[in-house]
Amino acid sequence: MPEPAPPPHPSRDELTRIARRAIDWGAEYLAGLESRPVQTPARPGDLLARLPASPPEATPGDINAEWDAIFRDLDELIAPSLTHWQSPSFFAFFPCNHSAPGIVAEVLSAMLNVNGMSWSTAPGVTELEIRMLDWMGEALALPACFRSDAPGGGGVIQSTASDATLVALVAARHRARRLHPDDDTIDSKLCVYTSTQAHSSVVKAAMVAGLVRAPDDTLRLRLIETDSTLAMDPDALGASIRADLDAGLVPAFVCATLGTTSSGAIDPLEAVAGACDGCAPRPWLHVDAAWAGAALICPELRAALGDGLDRADSLCINPHKWLLTNFDCDLMWTRASSDLVGALSITPEYLRHESQDCGAVDYRDWQIPLGRRFRALKLWLVMRRYGIEGLRAHIRSHVRWAAEFESWVREDDRFEISAPRSLSLVCLRLGAGDGATRALLERMNASGEVYLSHTTLPGAPGDERFVIRVAIGATQTERVHVERLWGLLRAEAGRVLGSAP
Amino acid sequence: MPEPAPPPHPSRDELTRIARRAIDWGAEYLAGLESRPVQTPARPGDLLARLPASPPEATPGDINAEWDAIFRDLDELIAPSLTHWQSPSFFAFFPCNHSAPGIVAEVLSAMLNVNGMSWSTAPGVTELEIRMLDWMGEALALPACFRSDAPGGGGVIQSTASDATLVALVAARHRARRLHPDDDTIDSKLCVYTSTQAHSSVVKAAMVAGLVRAPDDTLRLRLIETDSTLAMDPDALGASIRADLDAGLVPAFVCATLGTTSSGAIDPLEAVAGACDGCAPRPWLHVDAAWAGAALICPELRAALGDGLDRADSLCINPHKWLLTNFDCDLMWTRASSDLVGALSITPEYLRHESQDCGAVDYRDWQIPLGRRFRALKLWLVMRRYGIEGLRAHIRSHVRWAAEFESWVREDDRFEISAPRSLSLVCLRLGAGDGATRALLERMNASGEVYLSHTTLPGAPGDERFVIRVAIGATQTERVHVERLWGLLRAEAGRVLGSAP
Repeated sequence: MPEPAPPPHPSRDELTRIARRAIDWGAEYLAGLESRPVQTPARPGDLLARLPASPPEATPGDINAEWDAIFRDLDELIAPSLTHWQSPSFFAFFPCNHSAPGIVAEVLSAMLNVNGMSWSTAPGVTELEIRMLDWMGEALALPACFRSDAPGGGGVIQSTASDATLVALVAARHRARRLHPDDDTIDSKLCVYTSTQAHSSVVKAAMVAGLVRAPDDTLRLRLIETDSTLAMDPDALGASIRADLDAGLVPAFVCATLGTTSSGAIDPLEAVAGACDGCAPRPWLHVDAAWAGAALICPELRAALGDGLDRADSLCINPHKWLLTNFDCDLMWTRASSDLVGALSITPEYLRHESQDCGAVDYRDWQIPLGRRFRALKLWLVMRRYGIEGLRAHIRSHVRWAAEFESWVREDDRFEISAPRSLSLVCLRLGAGDGATRALLERMNASGEVYLSHTTLPGAPGDERFVIRVAIGATQTERVHVERLWGLLRAEAGRVLGSAP
Repeated sequence: MPEPAPPPHPSRDELTRIARRAIDWGAEYLAGLESRPVQTPARPGDLLARLPASPPEATPGDINAEWDAIFRDLDELIAPSLTHWQSPSFFAFFPCNHSAPGIVAEVLSAMLNVNGMSWSTAPGVTELEIRMLDWMGEALALPACFRSDAPGGGGVIQSTASDATLVALVAARHRARRLHPDDDTIDSKLCVYTSTQAHSSVVKAAMVAGLVRAPDDTLRLRLIETDSTLAMDPDALGASIRADLDAGLVPAFVCATLGTTSSGAIDPLEAVAGACDGCAPRPWLHVDAAWAGAALICPELRAALGDGLDRADSLCINPHKWLLTNFDCDLMWTRASSDLVGALSITPEYLRHESQDCGAVDYRDWQIPLGRRFRALKLWLVMRRYGIEGLRAHIRSHVRWAAEFESWVREDDRFEISAPRSLSLVCLRLGAGDGATRALLERMNASGEVYLSHTTLPGAPGDERFVIRVAIGATQTERVHVERLWGLLRAEAGRVLGSAP
């Protein structure tokens, strides 16, 4: 074996110097976002063509020159290849908020680089997380059953809502097996229910867990019809559950959505829970409130989300969407943690530690991966720097601007509102039809001035319509950006409709 | 709805000022690690008792005072509650490397806060990742079948090896269904094989995917016996596969390990692949090289990892363990990406984009979650700042020190080497037995001078022995820390054995 050279680790001076440069670079990037096209005009392969084919073999002889080259490449290669989620004119998908305290917490987490897989491997990671989930639960006025001091209650940070849904689903399966101990064929009887408007991650979780084979597998997956507001029809859910019971199947998992991705529809949770009541044992009720759940922080918005959270077995909300906490940060609460742990716990000898015997929480047993980042720091700094009132102000601005924006759209008879406005999400289209609406979206995004995304929504029965989604909520967005968006929509609509035959 | 106050977002000046303070705080923390107990002496509940029960309602009136309080709490509450994975005397589990370029990349990623779920939502995230996986594949001399330009080939960044194993397993299931299109009961016939020494994440993946019910479920989970080096016995694997075929079952997934967690054992990949040859279609062969795979970067260490990678369907290696890339960063390569995509792809209308039709990679279809961080930046900066030679020097130092350490242990007849040294992992115990070895470990960790973890390894048949693991590889570790570790072990062994009856 060759004599090892001493590893050329950067000095403390290099670390602080370059990290400060990265801070300054980032601050300049963020300050300059208004002058960049929100969606990059890059074509597939553009960046690949400009990156070297092979990695550098030698440690750079001139480290400073290499850092200069890296920062030049950030300017010339990387930044132009991105769609700028932090742009004030990013209205696509849902927002992906970051903030100064969120960024600072990521810096600290990267410096500490601890792994909180078990309580004992970094007790502070676990205990700050327990408390932050209680803090956020209090801020959102969640039912007491989700608090860490309630029997079976508590919360955990997952990577994304997809992970939370998968964890809830395998916990539901574990519970069903536990309640049907003598049925060896239980796994092949478990049925999953969600609405036709639910997020794709629900079906994906069922595919990963092996309950369904493909998105169109109807063997044990029930996509429940929605009402005129695109919310789950609880009567249809109840009928589906009864039919499955009659067929000897086992309703195991219901996923309701507070704020669907397409239109922000709010499933009627109390009635959904009521539809589960006829089934004994009841199916696990998971609530995907990934985006809209953030609005629970404002007392005056809670009514819009309906009652019934106290009927849920688990719930997830993503502060990385709309609560200023850097990606990734999905919060999941449950009232039945023993079913999560039962489904996910394995303790090989090399992970055993004394504190397991005195009730310490090992969050690895609440999630799919083993390792875990120190993400509670983000929540802690965000809540301390903004205060709950500051977070409320953030949400309230967006909801108010969306209401104004909706009123402008309604006054222009070329446009239609395609679904009831939900908080800060407005769905619209041109009355001239799908082709014109699609052309409008293409023109808007090609302008680089804004970035919008689309969906299809049911119009008349059997008729899916192409719809533009306007999701207000980026950290940097101000009212002026919403006004500018409307001006652009009107102008481009004129061009689209003027050029139509 | 109340009139919204303007959200009190921090200014650019506040962002840069506080982020710089976080950099300085972190650099000071890292420089001072030698004076902290490696494992915190905290007891369960210690931190919880010192955190406020409720979140702050108001935005702080004096922002600067609040930041002062936050940094004071980092010093007084958080740092003392952690086990310090970056300590130069952290020898537990496996290392969790970070580095200056890794930290800088995390800063940049937090500033950009883009979501690379699809190619179109941030093309640069996807394309830098494609190239970085090719760079790292070249640095590790992986077979060409895993390159992005090979048919079906390519790599992706997962969160952890647990995620990679789960993705590989559901891809394997998808392939088995594809190859047995007429068998409706295929799911209930699929068998999973791994060694008794494999990581718990393999069994956990099978539980999540629904193939097995519990860690001790023997219905379709085969834990293959190991040989005297604790590597999988390929003859036993072959026999198990044949028995399952004879029983009408379908061998679907074999997970081999290069570098087991307990002792670093290396499964003989070529022979393992050979044992699969008798089965048509062959089971999916996944290689978990999470820790030891990093050593492939050194040409002289490749022989120790054996041949046969070109027989694998997928492979994972964690640069967040031993290649200076901040947690989390697991690299997964496959030669059969269509099976990953087949198992994991769902494209609802709101995620559709034009570039899908021209072959752009959507990495959301290669993973469980939808959203994804910009993690390729870490690999890029680490490889550019260190060069491949710099990374080799890092690995070589640890392997050399481990060999020296092993020789010291062998010269002291109170100690036994419990398994063949694997790269930088040494397993040892006191000849006096389990009780004395356990007492030694407890004294070592209680000293705060070092942090070590343990496992059990088979001694005589049916006899599991308590063993101390010494994993050398933290970023800050120097030879002097290994010498000091050995001095402590000798001194504490004297106390343990002197005080024994």
